[in-house]
This record gives sequence, C-alpha cells and structure tokens, in this order.
Amino acid sequence: MNKPYVRLNKADAAVLLVDHQTGLLSLVRDIDPDRFKNNVLALADLAKYFALPTILTTSFEQGPNGPLVPELKEIFPKAPFIARPGQINAWDNEDFVQAIKATGKKQLIIAGVVTEVCVAFPTLSALAEGFDVFVVTDASGTFNELTRDSAWRRMEAAGAQLMTWFGVACELHRDWRNDIEGLGQLFSNHIPDYRNLINSYMTLTANK
Amino acid sequence: MNKPYVRLNKADAAVLLVDHQTGLLSLVRDIDPDRFKNNVLALADLAKYFALPTILTTSFEQGPNGPLVPELKEIFPKAPFIARPGQINAWDNEDFVQAIKATGKKQLIIAGVVTEVCVAFPTLSALAEGFDVFVVTDASGTFNELTRDSAWRRMEAAGAQLMTWFGVACELHRDWRNDIEGLGQLFSNHIPDYRNLINSYMTLTANK
Amino acid sequence: MNKPYVRLNKADAAVLLVDHQTGLLSLVRDIDPDRFKNNVLALADLAKYFALPTILTTSFEQGPNGPLVPELKEIFPKAPFIARPGQINAWDNEDFVQAIKATGKKQLIIAGVVTEVCVAFPTLSALAEGFDVFVVTDASGTFNELTRDSAWRRMEAAGAQLMTWFGVACELHRDWRNDIEGLGQLFSNHIPDYRNLINSYMTLTANK
Amino acid sequence: MNKPYVRLNKADAAVLLVDHQTGLLSLVRDIDPDRFKNNVLALADLAKYFALPTILTTSFEQGPNGPLVPELKEIFPKAPFIARPGQINAWDNEDFVQAIKATGKKQLIIAGVVTEVCVAFPTLSALAEGFDVFVVTDASGTFNELTRDSAWRRMEAAGAQLMTWFGVACELHRDWRNDIEGLGQLFSNHIPDYRNLINSYMTLTANK
Amino acid sequence: MNKPYVRLNKADAAVLLVDHQTGLLSLVRDIDPDRFKNNVLALADLAKYFALPTILTTSFEQGPNGPLVPELKEIFPKAPFIARPGQINAWDNEDFVQAIKATGKKQLIIAGVVTEVCVAFPTLSALAEGFDVFVVTDASGTFNELTRDSAWRRMEAAGAQLMTWFGVACELHRDWRNDIEGLGQLFSNHIPDYRNLINSYMTLTANK
Amino acid sequence: MNKPYVRLNKADAAVLLVDHQTGLLSLVRDIDPDRFKNNVLALADLAKYFALPTILTTSFEQGPNGPLVPELKEIFPKAPFIARPGQINAWDNEDFVQAIKATGKKQLIIAGVVTEVCVAFPTLSALAEGFDVFVVTDASGTFNELTRDSAWRRMEAAGAQLMTWFGVACELHRDWRNDIEGLGQLFSNHIPDYRNLINSYMTLTANK
Amino acid sequence: MNKPYVRLNKADAAVLLVDHQTGLLSLVRDIDPDRFKNNVLALADLAKYFALPTILTTSFEQGPNGPLVPELKEIFPKAPFIARPGQINAWDNEDFVQAIKATGKKQLIIAGVVTEVCVAFPTLSALAEGFDVFVVTDASGTFNELTRDSAWRRMEAAGAQLMTWFGVACELHRDWRNDIEGLGQLFSNHIPDYRNLINSYMTLTANK
Amino acid sequence: MNKPYVRLNKADAAVLLVDHQTGLLSLVRDIDPDRFKNNVLALADLAKYFALPTILTTSFEQGPNGPLVPELKEIFPKAPFIARPGQINAWDNEDFVQAIKATGKKQLIIAGVVTEVCVAFPTLSALAEGFDVFVVTDASGTFNELTRDSAWRRMEAAGAQLMTWFGVACELHRDWRNDIEGLGQLFSNHIPDYRNLINSYMTLTANK
Repeated sequence: MNKPYVRLNKADAAVLLVDHQTGLLSLVRDIDPDRFKNNVLALADLAKYFALPTILTTSFEQGPNGPLVPELKEIFPKAPFIARPGQINAWDNEDFVQAIKATGKKQLIIAGVVTEVCVAFPTLSALAEGFDVFVVTDASGTFNELTRDSAWRRMEAAGAQLMTWFGVACELHRDWRNDIEGLGQLFSNHIPDYRNLINSYMTLTANK
Repeated sequence: MNKPYVRLNKADAAVLLVDHQTGLLSLVRDIDPDRFKNNVLALADLAKYFALPTILTTSFEQGPNGPLVPELKEIFPKAPFIARPGQINAWDNEDFVQAIKATGKKQLIIAGVVTEVCVAFPTLSALAEGFDVFVVTDASGTFNELTRDSAWRRMEAAGAQLMTWFGVACELHRDWRNDIEGLGQLFSNHIPDYRNLINSYMTLTANK
Repeated sequence: MNKPYVRLNKADAAVLLVDHQTGLLSLVRDIDPDRFKNNVLALADLAKYFALPTILTTSFEQGPNGPLVPELKEIFPKAPFIARPGQINAWDNEDFVQAIKATGKKQLIIAGVVTEVCVAFPTLSALAEGFDVFVVTDASGTFNELTRDSAWRRMEAAGAQLMTWFGVACELHRDWRNDIEGLGQLFSNHIPDYRNLINSYMTLTANK
Repeated sequence: MNKPYVRLNKADAAVLLVDHQTGLLSLVRDIDPDRFKNNVLALADLAKYFALPTILTTSFEQGPNGPLVPELKEIFPKAPFIARPGQINAWDNEDFVQAIKATGKKQLIIAGVVTEVCVAFPTLSALAEGFDVFVVTDASGTFNELTRDSAWRRMEAAGAQLMTWFGVACELHRDWRNDIEGLGQLFSNHIPDYRNLINSYMTLTANK
Repeated sequence: MNKPYVRLNKADAAVLLVDHQTGLLSLVRDIDPDRFKNNVLALADLAKYFALPTILTTSFEQGPNGPLVPELKEIFPKAPFIARPGQINAWDNEDFVQAIKATGKKQLIIAGVVTEVCVAFPTLSALAEGFDVFVVTDASGTFNELTRDSAWRRMEAAGAQLMTWFGVACELHRDWRNDIEGLGQLFSNHIPDYRNLINSYMTLTANK
Repeated sequence: MNKPYVRLNKADAAVLLVDHQTGLLSLVRDIDPDRFKNNVLALADLAKYFALPTILTTSFEQGPNGPLVPELKEIFPKAPFIARPGQINAWDNEDFVQAIKATGKKQLIIAGVVTEVCVAFPTLSALAEGFDVFVVTDASGTFNELTRDSAWRRMEAAGAQLMTWFGVACELHRDWRNDIEGLGQLFSNHIPDYRNLINSYMTLTANK
Repeated sequence: MNKPYVRLNKADAAVLLVDHQTGLLSLVRDIDPDRFKNNVLALADLAKYFALPTILTTSFEQGPNGPLVPELKEIFPKAPFIARPGQINAWDNEDFVQAIKATGKKQLIIAGVVTEVCVAFPTLSALAEGFDVFVVTDASGTFNELTRDSAWRRMEAAGAQLMTWFGVACELHRDWRNDIEGLGQLFSNHIPDYRNLINSYMTLTANK
Repeated sequence: MNKPYVRLNKADAAVLLVDHQTGLLSLVRDIDPDRFKNNVLALADLAKYFALPTILTTSFEQGPNGPLVPELKEIFPKAPFIARPGQINAWDNEDFVQAIKATGKKQLIIAGVVTEVCVAFPTLSALAEGFDVFVVTDASGTFNELTRDSAWRRMEAAGAQLMTWFGVACELHRDWRNDIEGLGQLFSNHIPDYRNLINSYMTLTANK
C-alpha cells in the first residue's frame, strides 16, 4: 500500500526549472529571499555538477513576468530553453515535453515558481504519464505557507516524492568517495554552516 | 495507489460557496481578514469570469449567523441561492444537491466557513457520491490553524484535492492566449504583487 | 483508494476521555491552557448533550499524574471510570475495552493527554479491531507541535479521522431544527465569538 | 521625563507618503501584501476624508523603483508631488521640505517604503527641526521584522509617536457625532470585520 | 532618569473598562478569544475582589458595536456606566472623567478594545492630567500584533506602566496572608495551570 | 487501505543512531539545541534501559563532520560502531546492514542528522527490504522546518511510522507495573515538567 | 539622558533566585522547558563558579506552589534561604532584604518565576532603593510572550538592565585568561553548540 | 528628552567587526544562516565601498571559536586585525581601542557575534567614552530571539542607535547622484528582490 522507494539515479534523472523569472519571484513569500535565491542556485549547481540534462522554461518573458533570472542562463547556456507562448502548465507545451522525452530519463526533478501552478501542474501531468517526479520543495516558492501546504498535499497524494536540493544532491552522489572535493565545494558554496565547519577544519589541520 | 490527476475543466466544473455570512466570518481566525476577504472575492470573480455555474447557500440568515456577504449576492444575482432551514451539512438539503445536479457538472469547486463543518461535510458527501471535489483552501476559513489542519487531513484522506483560488484560475484557463487581458485584470485586482509588476511594466513600456 | 466517509451518528457513537489528569496537564504545551481547558470541557458538554455513552480512564491517579480533572467527574458522575493500574495503552486494560464493547457502539470519539501515547495507542488498537475512530484533535494535548504532528500522521495513516469538538458536535447534530436552543447554548458557552454574535443579535432583536 | 501627549489635530496635521512605488513594494516582506495595500489606501482615504494637506514623493520613478502606485495619484490628483532626483532622505530635498512648510502644519503623519530609510530618515530630520512626527507603522513596510523593529526603536528613541492608520483616523475624528456615515464608510471599506458588523446590523434593523 | 516605582495600592486605585462590546470584540485578533475572554473576566473579578471602584463605558451601544458584554454588567451592577454618545476618547466625555474623579483615586487601571484607540487615548489623556496609569495589556485587544506593539510603545513612552491582570492582582494583594482562600479561588478560576496545581495538592493532602 | 498497527515490541526492536556528530549538529536548526540534545540522549537512555540492540554509525569522522558526540559512545561502549568510509545512505554500507541483520530484529527505530538524508535514505531502504521502520522525529534534526516537512512526508508515504522518543518508550514499556522506578527515572531525567510533578509529589507525600 | 554603563563586577554582585518552585514552573510557557531548565541551572552554576553571594527564596513551599527545585538546593547548600510566609514581593520580606544587605553588594542579578511578579516586583523595589539591577531574562519565565513583554518594559523603564545568563557570565569573567578551563566547562555544560565546537576541536588537536 | 538625530557621515564613521568566526557562527540561531551570511558580507562590502576605516577583531582564533571567516579577511586585507588574547569585551583590549582612536572617527558602526556580549559590551563601553554607536542589528547574531531582544534593549537604553546594513548604506550615501552604479551594484549583490527589479528593468529598457 505504500509508495515504493524510487531512488534518484544520476543516469536516470533530468532537471526541470520552471518559471524562475525576475518578475514572478516577487510573488514568492513563503520563504526568505536570501534563502530562496541560494536554494535555486544550489539546485542549478548540482544539476551542472552531476551533468544532468536540464530544461529551462518561462512564461511570457516579454511581459511583466520578466526574464529568466540571468544566473540560470549563465549556468546552462546550452540547455533547451522553452519560452512558452501561453501555456500555463508547461506540460501542455509540446516542445517542453519533447525536450524531456529527448533526454530519455524517467526521473524528473522539478522546481519552479509558483508552487501550486508552475510546479504542481507539470508534476501531476508527468505522474499521469508514468514519470517518477521529485519535487524540490525548497527551490520552489509561492505566495504563503497556506498555498504551499495545499500544493504539497495535492502533489504528494498524486505520487510525487517531496525532496530538498540537499537531499537530491546526496541521493544522486551516493558515496563521498566518488568525489569529495566537488561535492564539498558545492555544499561549502550553498550551506554557510557547512562552509564554517570546513573552514574551521582546514585551519586546524593546516596548523598541525 | 496514487490519486489520478483529475484536472479542472471549464466545461465540467461548478462552484459552491457555503455560508460566507457576515456573522460567521467573525469566527474565522486562521487567516488575516484582509487576505481572506480578498480570496473569497477572487474566487467569486473567477467563477464569474469563467462563467461557471455557481451555487450559494447560507445557514440561518435571520439569526446571529447574519446574511450572506452582500458582495457575493451582487456578483451572482441570478445564482441558485439556498437558504437552508437547518441542515448543517449543505448536502443534506435536497434543494442544494438538486441545484448541483442540475448543472450537470462532476467537478465541484468548494469554499466556505467554517472549514471543518461547512466545507468538509458537503465535500465528504460529494466524494461519497462520486463527484470530484476541489477544496479552495484559501477561500475557506475556520477558528485556528489546528482545526484547519485537522479538516484538511480529513478531506484529503477522503479524496479531495486541495487547491487555492489562484491554482483554480490557472488550471481552468489553461493558456494565456485564451484571453490575456481578462485573466490579467483578475490577477491585478486580487494579487497586489502582480498588480505592481503590471504597473511597473506598463509605465516602462508606455515610456518607450 | 480513498477513505470512505464514515459519518458520525448519535446512535452509533461513544466517547473516550483518556488521562485528562491534573498533573499530566502540565505536560501539554502545544495549545494554550485557556483554550485547551475550554476544548476539553466543550467535548464533555457535547457528549452529555447528545447523551453519548462516555468512558473515563486515568493512569496512576494516586501518584504524580494527579487525579482526573474534577469537572469531568462532575459532568459524568455515573460514567464507567477505569483507573488503570499500570497499562499505558488503555486498550490493554480489559475493563476499559469491555466498557466500550458494552456500549455496543462502533464509532469511537477519543481525546486525551498526551496525544502520541494516551490517544494514539488506543486509537491504533481500536482501528485494528475494526472500530471507526474519530480523534478530537483540539481536546488532545502534548509536549509541542513536533510531537503532535508526528502523532497525527501516525493515526491518520492507520485510518483515524481527525476532527475537532466543534466538527463532532455539528456532525452529530445534523440539523439545527432538532434543537436550536440546546446547541446554541453549547456553542455560546464554549465559543466566545459565537457568544458575542448571539448577544449582539439578542440585543438588537429585543430592541425591536 | 515622559513624552507629553501631543494629540493629533485635524487643523494642525499634514500627511507625507514616501516612496510607495510599484517596484519598491516588492521589497516589503514584514507584512502581508493584501493587508499592506489595504493599510496604505486606508491612510490615503483618511487623509482625503479629513482634507489634510498631503505630500507625495518618490525616488527614481524612471528606474527599477517604478512609478508611484496609481491609486495614490488618483486619490490626490492635486497634491504636491516631488519626484526626487536622488536624495534618499526626502528631507534633503528642498522642494519636499518647502511643500511641508507651505502647509503651515506642525504635526506630520508619515508612512512609506522602506521603513528604516524612507520613513526613518525624514522622521528623524523632522523631529530635529521641532516637528511632531506620527509614524503610521502599518502603512510603512520593510524587508522583515528584524529590520522593522530596529527602525521603530530608532524613531521612537528620537521622539516619534508610533501609530496606526486606524488610530490616526480616530484621534483626528474625536467624536462620532462629527460625522457618523463618513467615518463608518471609511472603516467599512478598510476593515472587513467592521464591514461585517455593519452588514449584520443593517440587515437586522432593516428587518424590523 | 528612570520611571520611579509607582506601586499599585488597593486604597488608591480605580478600574476603567472601556468598550468591551460584543461587536467590537470581533475586531480583536492579537490574542486568542478563549484567552482574551478569560483575561477580561479575570480583571473584572479582581476589581470586585479588591472592591476597587470600577467604571464602565461603551461607545454606540445601539449600533453595530453592540452592547457591553453581559458578564461585565452582571459583575458590576451598580458601577457607573457611561454610554458615550460619540466621543472616541472616553476622556473627552465629562461624565466619564467626573466618575473617575469622584472615586478620588490617582491610580487608574485600564483595559479595553481596541488597544491603540479606546485604551491608548484615555491613557494618554489621564497621564497628561497627572494620573498614574496602569495598562492591563492582556485584557486589552486589537487588530494584530503590529498595531498592538505600536500602541504599547506610544503609551509607555508617555509614562504608562504596562502590566497584566495577574501582576495587578499580585501587586494589590501584597501578602497572601491577607486572604489565602479568596485570591487562591480567583487564580483557580482564571489560570488552568494553577487550578491543576491546587487540585493535585488537594487530592494528595486529602489522602493523608 | 490503511496502515496496520505494527506495535513496537521490546523483543523485536533495534535502534539505529545515524550521524549524530559534533560538526553535523551545527546544521540542525529545526529544533532548539537544548531540546534536541535532550531528545537524543533520551532516546539513547531508553535504548539502554530496554536493552535494545543499538547500532551507531558516522560519516567521515576525521573530517569537518566531527566525531560522534561523546555521550553516545559512553552510553553504548560495546555497540557496533560503523564509521562509514563514504556511503551517504548508511544502508549502502554492508557492515551496517549486517550489524542490523545480526540483531535478528524486524522493527527498526531510527534517528539521525540530517533528517532528509541520514534518516530518510536508510529508512526508505529498510522499508524496501521489508523492515518495519519507526522514525524518532524529535531525535532527528535538519536545516529548517521546510526540509523537515518534506522529509517526513516522503518517509511516511513510503510506510514509515513517525514517533517521538516518549512514544517509543511508552509503547515499549506497555505497563508501568513492569518497572515504575526505572521508567520514572528516565522520564524525570528528560522531561522537566515530569520531574517537577515527581518532586512536588515526593515532597507532599514525604511530609505526611 | 541615557542609562550609564553600569558594568557587572564580580566583587560587587549578588544573585537572587526567586520562586523557582516545582509547582510554579508549570506556569512557565514563554520558553521551552528544556531550555528554561538549562538556563536556570546555568545561572546557578555561574553564581557558584564566580562565588557570588546567592540568596534563595520561595513562596508557600508547603502548598501547591511546591518546593524549590532540588538542584538549586544542592548547588547552594549554605545560601540564605528565605521561605516567605506570604509576601508576594520578596522585597517586602525583611529577612530577604537583610540577607541582601548583608552581602554588601550593590549589583543585584535576579531571576525567577513568574517574571511580571516574582522578578518585577523586587526589581522595582530594589531600583527604588538605589541598587543596580540586572534581570536575567532567560532564567525568568512566565505565562506567555505577551505577559513577558509587558514585564520587561516595566522593569526597563524603571532602570533595570536586561541581560542573559551568558551575558552575565561573560561580563563577570572579563578575560578568558583568568581561567579558560573553568569557564569553558561552564559553557560546555550549558550550550550544546559550544560543547560541539569543543569536542570537534579536541578530537582534531588530539589527532595531531 | 529624546535622543538627537546623530546622522551617519562618511567622513566621521568607522566600522568594527567583532568575532565573526567560523566556530562562533554555529551559535547564531536568531537569524537564518543564508540571510546572516549575506548581511555580514553586505556590511563588509559597504564599508569597503564607502572606504570607511574598518577594524577586525577575534577572540581565541586558535581554539574552538575558529578563525575569522575568510571572506572578511579577503575584503579587508590591510585592515587592523586584533586577535585578542583573552579579553571578552573588545574595548578592554588596548590595541583595539587604539586602532579605533587612530581612525579619528567618532561614529562607530558595529556588528558581531554574539550580540549580547561581543556587540553589546564594546557598544556600552564606547558610549560611555562619548562615541556615537550604531549597532548593525541584522549583521549581528545570537542564540535566539529572547537573548537578542534583551541585548537590544540594553544597548538602546544606553544610547546606541539600532540600524540595519541597508539603512547604514543609505544614510552614508545621502544622494543617489553621488554614484548610481556603485550603490546599485551593492544592492543588487545583496538584496535578491532588488536584483530582480534591476534585471526586469534592464531587460525591458534594453528591448526598447
């Protein structure tokens, strides 16, 4: 009766970043802006670190929603980038779905703005088509806690797995021995407490 | 094992507004009054915008519960309006159920006051009769977060989908190209942050 | 796949009040003491109002846990009162289970202190024996929100329905026409906002 | 040793609205946007209701800060409107100070975005020049509670009186008999709970 | 430079209860209704217990503000009761001030609804006339924490002492030996945790 | 359709303590450090009290993660202690799984740092292999409430039971008559409110 | 106009612990019990560490308030211990004041339960007699944040300095070179994060 | 009676950064780590931008407190850096005070970890010597909100002005015309919402 453990696998996973646009970000109020910016960039950095196929999409870039945040464009200069002409659910855009299918991956890691629409709709659609969907909750934002909770419950009930960028990174990496430095750097860049641990450690061992 | 994605469809949906009465509203304390008023009116406006059949009902208008908030009457002057003589669960009122069935819709979008009674009871009854029920969580209010959480869990376990008015509007609209101005106006009227984006945009492009 | 709507029914329901003892109450910190006291007494008053068979039980009354709060003894002078000699899960006490079975009811409305033990254990046991269990979340208390949330999830996953005393009262009453004054009095006594509505109403209509 | 009671007086007061611009509003996160929008408009409406001289000012309207929110322009079509070319502290702008002095008022009611800069700086400057300053705390917004608290303490220590728009309206009005309908309308438009009270009352008395 | 310790004294103190009306209470959202009701009644009970002259006042009883909560009328059947015809600041009503002066007391204990108006205005006026004012913060309520904090700061800066009903009772009583039973009863009636302590104690000592 | 009640049983249970390391603990911010330290030690003490086989594991002790907190080593001097060379999911470490299987227990009680990785991953793996898993939520910590909630939902959906150390102790003990003093001492050491109850009781009964 | 910096001085300071009794502690709800217990014991330990004269007092030990928490008696076996026969303000008890004056100290460090009575009253009295008073805010507890805030403001306005046990320890110690080990041990025992830092450090330097 | 407006002046101000060390940062729990890291670096960047003399100091770098965070060393490679051998109050270290006096500035902008010790002590000492002190509240951190509030009140009562890094930057800059690009870059780097405004603006105006 329980959900089986579908475990993230580097070889099976793609990342979808939906509507992280400069205008829309002003709607996000369920998470502190400093923390949210950091989480989104951490997710982007891990996608790059694990060389996961990544797909970017936006809604109405020319209008008030604003352009994709420039950092994401810089991190993924060659990623498929679908500027949707109007579809609210990105899954309704054929180019977007085709880009996903072209990756050949069955595990979709998704984050976006706002959670109950830009994340939830394609999540529900992807689940309905048999994909495994992993929602990166802390890189997705919305109006307030009430709307977030509603969205989480709807996606969870439909079979999505709720994760965080840190959990995603750890589940993909599997074993520190695969690369200590690279993952350590990723964490140092995006987790101030971890950076402090490393800096304390470095200083003490350097002094030996 | 997971809930399938039952997607809201303009052609299949009706809206139920249950007991948004001037007296009962003083019981609502799980959400700020300014935000709640806005959410309820936003839901009403979207019902009108999408021309969804809408049904109003109240409990004991003549007593301390007070009348339906006048704005709702103004927005839906011709909607079926069932002033229940005593049934707490609106679904126990035959006129109410008949009004719903008369719409021929199978997707019910519901909101009301208070969540664990006026929303939860008809939701559970409607689910038991095979309707798809979409609870508009942010246009429903109750005594406090604890009672809200209990109510949400009970409805969700029974199969209801938890949504927000913004999610409902987006899922119904499907594609901005269906009508940019109308939906934009709806959002501008009920989402201050969105209104600001639009106003900034308008000014800048007007200055070109 | 969803839980069916098992609806509370006056004729089928019994109430279990577990370990509301003067000492144990000092452990309850997930809810304000004024509100909690009111909720517990409201549940007791509704049990009496609907003449539901009610069973009281305590754990170690002679020790630091302290006696049952005197108000509950006064409200239910003749109710079965099982002072358990040591069983933590009240369901492990034969007298308690026998008292329940003697009522002949299949719907159990339960509340107690602390939620994850005194409420959750008998709830899980009762569900395992095929009872329908309705947890009155706001008349149950525990150490903090974290332990409460854990307990709610465990009970919900096992099939319990989470309700509040107000929801229970409304679902049992079904129709105001069964008795306006009695239920109105119950609400006036335990919901200050409702009392205010009634008092405003009374004054205005008396002035006519 | 205590601050004397400087009481707001219709004849002595002017209102300063500082930098309520569509871009800057996205920085405000210490208050819910629905509530904040309502508070700002309520302050504007009361300024108009009491016919207080009102001065508008903005910072860099042509840049990312965005234009003044259009509602304010509509409410005060003829008010002095100082688009500052660069001064951060509006008091450093001679036109602004002159506009204030031209009113001949010694009581300044101020609100703006963000609290610790656009409100605090002119407040401190005005106090230093001997004005009485009344900060409308709920029509002023900033990044978060921590920055707000710092700003409030700095202004209070310097002698500002912290008020809310409702307090300002009441202190200016003095006596309901001056005009029941007008003030009632103002409150009904901006306090949902008050509107509900009035609607309940109207219905009951209309039914007499 | 610091405020001197002006200590409450049974012989010098009077109590002012301002606008605790059934309609206005729906505006109070900075404190849980169960707790607020309890605090207001606790303050009333202590005023009666210490036989302090108490003055009641209301604003527009016949309109939407509603009547004084009936419990207060019952507790103080013979207290001066000033139904103000329109003055918002009760101190602007001559009867009210005269009733206060008729008590001959210089220490005023005040509580009311809403804090920044009905409490703050007469507090500031009374301080300006040389009274010592003690604001009972937990028996005064308002729209939200933001407006409360503003009001507290304004009154404190003007010289008011902020207290709670429990602090007031303790400072007036001075010594338990003056009357153990009476004060114990007052606390047992209004502090659930204290009632539990007493009940545990009674049971254990009765069992000796 | 509901989870059956799998009840903790002293004879069937083992405890897994994952990565409670001095460095990693600085990452835990969803729970107060005083409370968290107490909860972890309470879980350790109960494991010892019930003589449950307990397995300790750490990740990179020599690096910035730091050593296992010394208290745990002292409480379990002979427990299997697996210092993992790199596997992030402890279940990927054969020694760890073998140590678990060597206990012959099917009920696994697990806690660790951080919840969404060090707890969630082995929980999901163990469930997939048919173990019953009981997550001790209050002895597990992570970055913030958002990441905790995501992790809880993922584990719960996969079939884990969410408990607290107090619930675990009570479910294992079953009946106070098995040993009043031992369990009482455990609670007195880790629940200040309980300690107070006992101390009050002891004093009163000693005085008899 | 500002308070001068009266700096704590080992040679000038005495500690007053007021009414930390097992029954009264159940009233404290503005701080988590684990944290509060730790803070009170930390204050006691620092008083002992700096050999400050310490005075204990209780109110009605034989009644429901319960005895002084035993740990305090153990830490200060020879301290003056004034069991007050009835005075609520400890300063009204001559023995208490005499014990203080006998120390010859002018700096009083005070903590107790509950803040607005047992701490605030003697604080105000001591200030009135010219003592310097340092309130240890985190070792003092009360019913809720609202009552705490009121109490803090009243004491601060009267001239008390608000500190924490950690601040007190640091201000008394002045220089780590006076004794690294002793103060380090105090912090390690009462600040889990500090203990972790030390344990990480010890392990790394031991490994050199 | 009020504090005069001492306005920050580029020519008169120096910055003190006290004990932002990698170990001590794990004690900071009154502010989210992402936000805190950003605030500290923002303060450092503004000190550099305005070319304010800046002084760094640490306590026990070789021990568990850890080294100064490397970013600060990089930003201020030539700043006076006083590694205190033991003084807890940095003002007790002669080199530190001399370094300050050597700057010839009378306005001290201070931030550090933890607020009630490393910030409050030198703040109080500096005020006592006649300096004007501006505490950057959001670049200073401590154990929790309770200890922060105590510390703020103590410093404020002694005459410190509480500010934020954003307020400091704005008060120093005075007029955007002094340098739009530089300050804009500073804000864009440290205020995500501002960065979004700029990016939206740039895109729209570039498209013209």
